[in-house]
Amino acid sequence: MAEVLSSLRSLMAAHSPPLDALVVPSEDYHQSEYVSARDKRREFVSGFTGSAGLALITKDEARLWTDGRYFLQAEQQLSDEWTLMRMAEDPAVDVWMAENLVEEAAVGVNPWCISADTARRWKSAFSKKHQKLVPTATDLVDEIWKNRPADEANPVVVQPLEFTGRSVAEKLYDLRGKLKASNARGIIITTLDQVAWLYNIRGSDVPYCPVVHAFALVTLQSAFLYVDRRKVSSEVNSYMDENAIEVRDYTAVSSDVALLASGQLDSPKAETVGNGTTEAEGHGVDLVWVDASSCSYALYSKLNLAKVVQQQSPLALAKALKNPVELDGLRKAHIRDGAAVVQYLVWLDKQMQDMYGASGYFLEGEADKKKKDLRTTKLTEVTVSDKLESFRASKEHFRGLSFPTISSVGPNAAIIHYGPQPETCAEVDPDKIYLFDSGAQYLDGTTDITRTVHFGVPSTHEKACYTAVLKGHIGLGNARFPNGTNGHALDILARIPLWKSGLDYRHGTGHGIGSFLFVHEGPHQISFRPSARNVPIQASMTVTDEPGYYEDGNFGIRLENVLVVNEADTKFNFGDKGYLEFEHITWAPYQRKLIDVSLLVPEEIEWLNTYHSKCKEILAPHLNENERSWLSKATEPVSVA
Amino acid sequence: MAEVLSSLRSLMAAHSPPLDALVVPSEDYHQSEYVSARDKRREFVSGFTGSAGLALITKDEARLWTDGRYFLQAEQQLSDEWTLMRMAEDPAVDVWMAENLVEEAAVGVNPWCISADTARRWKSAFSKKHQKLVPTATDLVDEIWKNRPADEANPVVVQPLEFTGRSVAEKLYDLRGKLKASNARGIIITTLDQVAWLYNIRGSDVPYCPVVHAFALVTLQSAFLYVDRRKVSSEVNSYMDENAIEVRDYTAVSSDVALLASGQLDSPKAETVGNGTTEAEGHGVDLVWVDASSCSYALYSKLNLAKVVQQQSPLALAKALKNPVELDGLRKAHIRDGAAVVQYLVWLDKQMQDMYGASGYFLEGEADKKKKDLRTTKLTEVTVSDKLESFRASKEHFRGLSFPTISSVGPNAAIIHYGPQPETCAEVDPDKIYLFDSGAQYLDGTTDITRTVHFGVPSTHEKACYTAVLKGHIGLGNARFPNGTNGHALDILARIPLWKSGLDYRHGTGHGIGSFLFVHEGPHQISFRPSARNVPIQASMTVTDEPGYYEDGNFGIRLENVLVVNEADTKFNFGDKGYLEFEHITWAPYQRKLIDVSLLVPEEIEWLNTYHSKCKEILAPHLNENERSWLSKATEPVSVA
Repeated sequence: MAEVLSSLRSLMAAHSPPLDALVVPSEDYHQSEYVSARDKRREFVSGFTGSAGLALITKDEARLWTDGRYFLQAEQQLSDEWTLMRMAEDPAVDVWMAENLVEEAAVGVNPWCISADTARRWKSAFSKKHQKLVPTATDLVDEIWKNRPADEANPVVVQPLEFTGRSVAEKLYDLRGKLKASNARGIIITTLDQVAWLYNIRGSDVPYCPVVHAFALVTLQSAFLYVDRRKVSSEVNSYMDENAIEVRDYTAVSSDVALLASGQLDSPKAETVGNGTTEAEGHGVDLVWVDASSCSYALYSKLNLAKVVQQQSPLALAKALKNPVELDGLRKAHIRDGAAVVQYLVWLDKQMQDMYGASGYFLEGEADKKKKDLRTTKLTEVTVSDKLESFRASKEHFRGLSFPTISSVGPNAAIIHYGPQPETCAEVDPDKIYLFDSGAQYLDGTTDITRTVHFGVPSTHEKACYTAVLKGHIGLGNARFPNGTNGHALDILARIPLWKSGLDYRHGTGHGIGSFLFVHEGPHQISFRPSARNVPIQASMTVTDEPGYYEDGNFGIRLENVLVVNEADTKFNFGDKGYLEFEHITWAPYQRKLIDVSLLVPEEIEWLNTYHSKCKEILAPHLNENERSWLSKATEPVSVA
Repeated sequence: MAEVLSSLRSLMAAHSPPLDALVVPSEDYHQSEYVSARDKRREFVSGFTGSAGLALITKDEARLWTDGRYFLQAEQQLSDEWTLMRMAEDPAVDVWMAENLVEEAAVGVNPWCISADTARRWKSAFSKKHQKLVPTATDLVDEIWKNRPADEANPVVVQPLEFTGRSVAEKLYDLRGKLKASNARGIIITTLDQVAWLYNIRGSDVPYCPVVHAFALVTLQSAFLYVDRRKVSSEVNSYMDENAIEVRDYTAVSSDVALLASGQLDSPKAETVGNGTTEAEGHGVDLVWVDASSCSYALYSKLNLAKVVQQQSPLALAKALKNPVELDGLRKAHIRDGAAVVQYLVWLDKQMQDMYGASGYFLEGEADKKKKDLRTTKLTEVTVSDKLESFRASKEHFRGLSFPTISSVGPNAAIIHYGPQPETCAEVDPDKIYLFDSGAQYLDGTTDITRTVHFGVPSTHEKACYTAVLKGHIGLGNARFPNGTNGHALDILARIPLWKSGLDYRHGTGHGIGSFLFVHEGPHQISFRPSARNVPIQASMTVTDEPGYYEDGNFGIRLENVLVVNEADTKFNFGDKGYLEFEHITWAPYQRKLIDVSLLVPEEIEWLNTYHSKCKEILAPHLNENERSWLSKATEPVSVA
């Protein structure tokens, strides 16, 4: 590690101009949440493996900023050379740099790895002390990274209409309509899921995310895809031809954005008929649409800022509003996924009893310690999560996991984004809570589910907390609300039962989920964060419902279902706004043993029993007899004693 | 009316420069919600008596903007010469003026009657067409208002420490601490309740509001009161002397603000010792604090804008955070007020049975129509509300009503801010819902309560709606939440039970209430409006809890209690934030007949029964035997059949 820092510091000193500091962000050229192995530059320099963070290297210091999900993990992984900066507690990176770096300091960064918005914010912070943000021509980390994984040519795959529900032509037609309405003659699309969604393509360039490293430019006449040509088979090339999409080299995007900015970008495949767009040109439609929150500083710098529309990409909302085919696929994928989760629980229940002497999923009894002592192998957080993956892998349309499985025993469950490592992870334990948050990619939909279970005797406190989380989960999932309501307003519904006892959780409550795309999808969310006000929750969106409670050093609880937003058939329709409600599409039981039914109100009991009854019915065809029998027991109705 | 408009148009034409339009706002020189009779200029020109609205007069048109509470009333009261502009549906007044007035139009307004913020917003809208906002030297309406009520010299009264709980010296000390922390050497205080609160004085210049028409200027050394000197007795003058408050003419505020702006305002009574302030001067403490949302454009124009702190007045929050003496007074005032409300209900119940043949408050039976036909006098919305006032007037410390009583039968209850007029108001009706929203000023506190009752057979629909409103009322009033939570987040708790059936209400859910001051008090509120995010709900604030449901042409329901915010003794304290809860201080029964108990959950039933039991116990000493017996029956516990 010391070697990495000293090599980087040599490059910084040799750089023209010499750099006083170097920023190494977590993001790739597309500002992705998950990145490919060769894009894990921040992990390489710091050793910290969390998904979010930013490294700053100066002549004498190395600091790593990350958020509350990762404080514990970062403390463990960072060497002595590093100082952990806790986001929301310590100064933000731009504030810290502005205050602590010298006057006129030069701060280097790979301009492809930060967004235009971030660059703007930093520059503004730097102005007081005349510090400078220096975009480096090459990535200094890449220069010293000897064993950097190779750039593999994973194939581009066409996602068929039976799963996408809408053709590229329809999507382009809609997009161009929005461009024209904003006087834009073109748009830069840089986020990987937007490129994949628009062109109905998928890939395998990024773990957990079925996307291709690619950019898209769309004008009123033309559509371009910038991708490593090795990834494009002749079949896919034909598909692109049919859809009038011009394929160009990944690296050509830079010069083409400059051409787009000056109005000179054109394609031999330009569509001049059929979409009624050509006439709009020349009548003030001369802007370029860019989403500065996700467009890299590198690409953004090529634009003529007097001629841009700076708004959220119209594809963000278009992608979030699922069409009936996508919704149908998501429902089906969640049924298969639920079956895998139940199979896993059945298997785990048996192992806990057989190997660890646990009383099991259904009974509350002391573990038989002798049995445990006789075990010849161990089950760990990692080995059981591998088993869970294998159940999923046996399902139709499975294409991998949608994020690294959180499989956590006892105190580890209190680490919100815990990622167990084979060497260091904990063994399962019949006396402790076990939380697993996991999901998969299926051709017809992406899944994400969390359940929390106990195979021994949960404490009264654990039951009370589980029940409060469940009440919040039901309170949100069972809500009806008028059109126009945003996820900031809804967030409190999941917290109120916890707040009654002075409990809370330090994360948002819900995120959108993709149709065989990203597991975390905007533009909407359910959260206390102000950004949750930007976009109202709308019919045909997906959103998770995942309150939790985490007690450091003891245990963690989270319950998560995916919901689809539907129009509600309310008795009245005050204000003619139209009302909305949620449909749960995730199917797996809540552990009755962990529920203190006396704390539930009749409406909650009714909801729970109805959900369990549907769960049993829907999953039955996907289970064997033993599993069906287990599920029948797990979904027996609860009632107040 | 036609004459008023033509006279105004003549003055507009004769003005230098000639005015293309004249704006007549509802507000007085202090941007008050309620204004004195002689300040009701907008009512005088338009005939519309609602509390909120704005008149715009051009050469050929007259338009009146008002909000949803008043659409029905304005339609009834405006003559044919006027066009009603519906706020939130039609363009806002500044947008309308900018679009519809000619290029370079001159728009006149009395600059004392609009806030600096409003003037700024209008000027910005006017810039596109080079229109101008012209502050008139005199109020054109006053010039033509022949029978304008005289300017009476209502006395300034000192509010004793036994009710205020804090001396002027303490309040000034705190205020000066906040000024210094913001590098301000002075502050302009223009809202009437802030002046009254700071100097511990009250008055009777404005109906429903125990305040004096006055301004205050406070510097680090001096304190000034600008008031009609006729209102200040020699005793009050002595009080001012003791508190080092210099009394000056009301009209002198204008020139003194100019002196304050140039650093030349000083008082022979300047405090040079004891508060440690003088030394702070001359060390960059050279700003003037002004709250542009409430300071008039006239006064604001005297300031040097390079040297101002533009923030909400620090007195807004200081006044909202009640001290223990104020809280004690508010609790006591609400007990007397609750007793008056119960006495009224007992009286009304008897009248409804005796005069109108109603089955009454407790029974659900058909009215005896013959009895009604035999009645020799009528009870109307106005006569019954007079009776309610008389019950309140019999209580200790009574000083008048806190706002015009809303006393509304059947469809009138659907008019949210209905103000019954003696000539046109409805008769009471045993077959219709009756809603009354009322409050009083007592020396020790201001009250505000709404109850909705039925003396005959309520429909199933009315019961379902009443119960949904009650569930929202309990859901909010019974909530616990961490410090930092604002009223925008809490608002949804009162709506969720209504939303279940597609019901809602078009008003906020809660406002602060004064300590013998304004019935509507900020800076916090509970509302869907974005401004409810500005200030979190904090311990020792007061706030109302008043959800409703209104069905045009049929009925209206609202339930309102005043709550005090207290620290909650939660079992846990996640995040060390501290949790808060509400204490209901309003005491009057909910009508059990209107509650569909089967729709309540156990927690709601328990809350209701506990509240009713306390209500009986707390009010008993203030009632006679008959009233006590009635209240016992009204507060009997409910239970699921």
